Amino acid sequence: MLYFTNDYSEGAHPKVLEALTVTNMEPLDGYGMDKYSLSAIEKIKKACQNDKAEVYFLTGGTQTNMVVISSLLDTFEGVIAADTGHISVHEAGAIEYHGHKVMPIPHHNGKLMAADVKAYLETFYGDANHDHMVFPGMAYISHPTEYGTLYTKEELTALSEVCHQYNLPLFLDGARLGYGLTANDTDVTLPVIAELTDVFYIGGTKVGALCGEAVVFTKKTPSHFVTRIKQHGALLAKGRLNGVQFDALFTDDLYLTIARHANKMAQKLLQGMVAKGYTPYIDSPTNQQFFIFENDVLNDLKEKVVYSFWERYGDSHTVIRLATSWATREEDIEALMKLIPTRG
Amino acid sequence: MLYFTNDYSEGAHPKVLEALTVTNMEPLDGYGMDKYSLSAIEKIKKACQNDKAEVYFLTGGTQTNMVVISSLLDTFEGVIAADTGHISVHEAGAIEYHGHKVMPIPHHNGKLMAADVKAYLETFYGDANHDHMVFPGMAYISHPTEYGTLYTKEELTALSEVCHQYNLPLFLDGARLGYGLTANDTDVTLPVIAELTDVFYIGGTKVGALCGEAVVFTKKTPSHFVTRIKQHGALLAKGRLNGVQFDALFTDDLYLTIARHANKMAQKLLQGMVAKGYTPYIDSPTNQQFFIFENDVLNDLKEKVVYSFWERYGDSHTVIRLATSWATREEDIEALMKLIPTRG
Amino acid sequence: MLYFTNDYSEGAHPKVLEALTVTNMEPLDGYGMDKYSLSAIEKIKKACQNDKAEVYFLTGGTQTNMVVISSLLDTFEGVIAADTGHISVHEAGAIEYHGHKVMPIPHHNGKLMAADVKAYLETFYGDANHDHMVFPGMAYISHPTEYGTLYTKEELTALSEVCHQYNLPLFLDGARLGYGLTANDTDVTLPVIAELTDVFYIGGTKVGALCGEAVVFTKKTPSHFVTRIKQHGALLAKGRLNGVQFDALFTDDLYLTIARHANKMAQKLLQGMVAKGYTPYIDSPTNQQFFIFENDVLNDLKEKVVYSFWERYGDSHTVIRLATSWATREEDIEALMKLIPTRG
Amino acid sequence: MLYFTNDYSEGAHPKVLEALTVTNMEPLDGYGMDKYSLSAIEKIKKACQNDKAEVYFLTGGTQTNMVVISSLLDTFEGVIAADTGHISVHEAGAIEYHGHKVMPIPHHNGKLMAADVKAYLETFYGDANHDHMVFPGMAYISHPTEYGTLYTKEELTALSEVCHQYNLPLFLDGARLGYGLTANDTDVTLPVIAELTDVFYIGGTKVGALCGEAVVFTKKTPSHFVTRIKQHGALLAKGRLNGVQFDALFTDDLYLTIARHANKMAQKLLQGMVAKGYTPYIDSPTNQQFFIFENDVLNDLKEKVVYSFWERYGDSHTVIRLATSWATREEDIEALMKLIPTRG
Repeated sequence: MLYFTNDYSEGAHPKVLEALTVTNMEPLDGYGMDKYSLSAIEKIKKACQNDKAEVYFLTGGTQTNMVVISSLLDTFEGVIAADTGHISVHEAGAIEYHGHKVMPIPHHNGKLMAADVKAYLETFYGDANHDHMVFPGMAYISHPTEYGTLYTKEELTALSEVCHQYNLPLFLDGARLGYGLTANDTDVTLPVIAELTDVFYIGGTKVGALCGEAVVFTKKTPSHFVTRIKQHGALLAKGRLNGVQFDALFTDDLYLTIARHANKMAQKLLQGMVAKGYTPYIDSPTNQQFFIFENDVLNDLKEKVVYSFWERYGDSHTVIRLATSWATREEDIEALMKLIPTRG
Repeated sequence: MLYFTNDYSEGAHPKVLEALTVTNMEPLDGYGMDKYSLSAIEKIKKACQNDKAEVYFLTGGTQTNMVVISSLLDTFEGVIAADTGHISVHEAGAIEYHGHKVMPIPHHNGKLMAADVKAYLETFYGDANHDHMVFPGMAYISHPTEYGTLYTKEELTALSEVCHQYNLPLFLDGARLGYGLTANDTDVTLPVIAELTDVFYIGGTKVGALCGEAVVFTKKTPSHFVTRIKQHGALLAKGRLNGVQFDALFTDDLYLTIARHANKMAQKLLQGMVAKGYTPYIDSPTNQQFFIFENDVLNDLKEKVVYSFWERYGDSHTVIRLATSWATREEDIEALMKLIPTRG
Repeated sequence: MLYFTNDYSEGAHPKVLEALTVTNMEPLDGYGMDKYSLSAIEKIKKACQNDKAEVYFLTGGTQTNMVVISSLLDTFEGVIAADTGHISVHEAGAIEYHGHKVMPIPHHNGKLMAADVKAYLETFYGDANHDHMVFPGMAYISHPTEYGTLYTKEELTALSEVCHQYNLPLFLDGARLGYGLTANDTDVTLPVIAELTDVFYIGGTKVGALCGEAVVFTKKTPSHFVTRIKQHGALLAKGRLNGVQFDALFTDDLYLTIARHANKMAQKLLQGMVAKGYTPYIDSPTNQQFFIFENDVLNDLKEKVVYSFWERYGDSHTVIRLATSWATREEDIEALMKLIPTRG
Repeated sequence: MLYFTNDYSEGAHPKVLEALTVTNMEPLDGYGMDKYSLSAIEKIKKACQNDKAEVYFLTGGTQTNMVVISSLLDTFEGVIAADTGHISVHEAGAIEYHGHKVMPIPHHNGKLMAADVKAYLETFYGDANHDHMVFPGMAYISHPTEYGTLYTKEELTALSEVCHQYNLPLFLDGARLGYGLTANDTDVTLPVIAELTDVFYIGGTKVGALCGEAVVFTKKTPSHFVTRIKQHGALLAKGRLNGVQFDALFTDDLYLTIARHANKMAQKLLQGMVAKGYTPYIDSPTNQQFFIFENDVLNDLKEKVVYSFWERYGDSHTVIRLATSWATREEDIEALMKLIPTRG
């Protein structure tokens, strides 16, 4: 069976696992005060070229979004997001459950555009009844997006400017950040993100760790953030679990190396598909690739390949996602290509 | 100054006020257990032709929506509503603040259509990832809608069928219910509503009371509903305030009489406007009428008439709402017509 | 039947009702922007001798406590209160429902003492694990308390000092404030309260109004407070209902006159009871009086007098509350005294 | 440095880590649907002798308490707990943050006694005003308790009976369950717990895992529990992380073996302390031991031993906790004993 269903099918990258093994018997302080967590924090701040940043480790993406968003918003505020954003659709309403409206704006290839945010804010403040409405309190973007697409530095700068003009913190969900940072032709680096956003996270779960996301507050951290984490059930007693893994990921550029490999495999996959006559459903420079298949073809394929259902495309076709990861090998791509029929 | 801005500019209808005055010195039980509240409940049940209904009095529309919705939904469920629904837009996120997503569906003249709800539900349950999404737990409609429009019995029946097929309670927001019940040509009566919905409310604030909304659970009431009301800060110590008013409104058909008058005034207003060359923005058979005006005309008008801004219509025009109520007199309509310039 | 069960058995004081009647037909702005609300606000600020105060009208006590407390606290904070405080016991968990812990401290005659609050805070900050605990974010007191007792200016000053030393806002629940302000020998006036607390409310429902509580922020108001009110379902469309009533209550000292009368009746009741051989259960200078009765005596009494059960007192006795109000007449007290048997 | 501060200072037990290593490269389904999670579930059900149980894996103790409690309670209900319970004190108000009151009852050696719960419930339902109060909706206990103490089967049976008489689910927090199951002279086994409680969890984090708690619903699982987990940000994409660890812990009795070792070390520690003249602060048969020390002695000790501050004991003494774990060696105990001065 070939696994292209996602980027979290295997355990940890071997070097991450090794770090857990090597440090396993050391007695360490709990709740993230251990030396590996502290070391990882320093490495991340350095990679961000931001001395004033504060870094905290959480365990998963939905958890991170919910903790960060509910820490930044006042009770009467909501969060602006693309209508395809992870918080808009696939987090079981975690944001609303914690009291805040997600304010969806139509996406452009998965992205939230500055002009749309500006128009939304102008309409809101121009509405004489806006005191009876949810106040926009922050903006949420994902990079790469749920469609694998990337913001340009220019787009990110424009978003940042609109947000800050209206005093909205800009939060970047980097569940798959590595794949974004190492994509071909991107001009969005970690220091750029640290400069343009107010808070973002560096995803571990989907980029080589067993679990773990590193939240980076670039300018100002909500008060008593550890207590806020605890209150969401998100503070690990063995904080070392996240700390050791991120310390390994930020040693010798492992995080970027992992991601670059996955992107390379994705490009190879894309080229193979194009050669077979398939057009990508969306133009993604990262590790998630989307294609339209005939349902009949998929029926045959699913005996040998695990892929992700994305959405229906008319009655006889389906959009699927094929994802690569640190664990994808060139021979996996080649094996996949042998299974894909040439398009008529 | 002429007031057409809304249907809650004056105090109570004189007969409602009289009932408060006549009963004022009687010592009564608190928290809605007084005899006037009990009498009002019986009258409402009779008007609904539903012996098994349970009736509770709350104080305002947003409060009622928030109490009913949070009482009906489980924590992982949201409420389906038209994107123009009051809960979707103008309640400051009270539903989300209490933990639930409002799931907006595009409206048709302010209405939520059964076919759209059905499609939404089919898509939801057809999505392999729906365990990671908010479950639709009920449907919300307003009647009349925010645009003054009405469901037909057929539309309401279709909605009711779809909802019950999926085990979703159907909740009807009747903040302006009287105007709906007494509109020309409607086939939606109180017993019809009581039969087709699971819970609805009969609005008092906007139909002649100082405050107050009567919630009617037609089939089954959430357990310990009084405690739920209290928990939302919505239980009046002097429950008589609502009870006495509703007892008066449901004596000698006062509620319907008030509403019928307002509708009649609205029709007169509509005819006057049409005669002046205006086309209604939306075809409303109830007490709210919407028209497009040139901004220059409005600038002159606002010195003499209070109206409601509804939305911009291009750069040089605006949609406004003109509302009638029990307090609108024929001479007010005539005076208004003298101020409205004939359309070129 | 004689009614001594509470201070909200009748409707509104006649002058309050008259104000509603006189203003009834005037068309006014909604949502508290009407001229009577604005006038009432000015009168209250003047009575508080505080030009910078901001005043908002809400509808009931639990609602007011829940709106104020959830507006003042950050998500990780709780509210300190006496264990007998209304929010600790009798509000159906409205504070917890909105996300905050009530941190109970043993009461002294219904009061929260500064020394206990100080000890609580010192213990909290002295605990090495306090980041894993709920942070105390404000203090709540009621004046009069649930037992009818009063703080002295000295006690209130001490509380205020402790709270401000730890940056905690002090909130005074004045559901029955009038009775406190007009008690014999009190040195706690409205300007004293406005100076020593950060926010308090002047209760209307239990002091002559049909409904309504006036919230006074003495130093600083939470941002967008109207939106916060709306979000709790607490914003009346006909805001005039509260505004007109408070405007009447703060005209010609009506509020204090009503309360003074009730206190006078309570003193007469107390003296009568003492003459009959009863000792008050607690020494209350306000309109609520508490006595221990033999259950057998109560059984006879309840045919002719409505009183409030307070708590059991051993197997054969019960503590009851007898409350007076603006509506209590001297002859009611005399009639009551004739029914009370002299204690053996 | 000697570590007796807690039972989560080291990483995972070597066999648990080995299981993670051995399975690392296998591609597996996400979100807990992998074969190791399924295998672990079967092993746990077998150990509980309960075929109908449903088992879910979460990541930490506070998270588990918050997910389980908010899934079981209706919005107007609270949870009864000992005043020393973890949810009462050390979870940063996670229960209240999610909307529910913790109703503290005075503990007996850390335990909640059936008679106290019964009295609480009788008082509640006997109070004429209980509709204005928080309804008790479930009971929470920890076993071992926060003081290391254990319920007897008789005590647990009595609690279970009271709870079920009032229709309250009984929830047992087993963050340290292993130490309870393997204590000398206990008659509380896993099948006994599965029979007497409605839901409990088997703690992994503090008994040899890197993270992870296994929640066991013994009779009935809240609907759509996976969605509820997701909504709390508690669903791991790599659910294998918990599944593989619990599969290892429940292979060859590893879970109990680990715990038995820690208990044995704790007994050795206790005997050593008694021999030195110390009386235990509380009589704990499990891996947490509590002693009163002179502050001066502690000052010397802390250079060489890491222990946990528990609480002050007068001005010159302090209660500390010494905890053992799977990683504690006999020589560690011996080394510790050499450092402890004989008590005068």
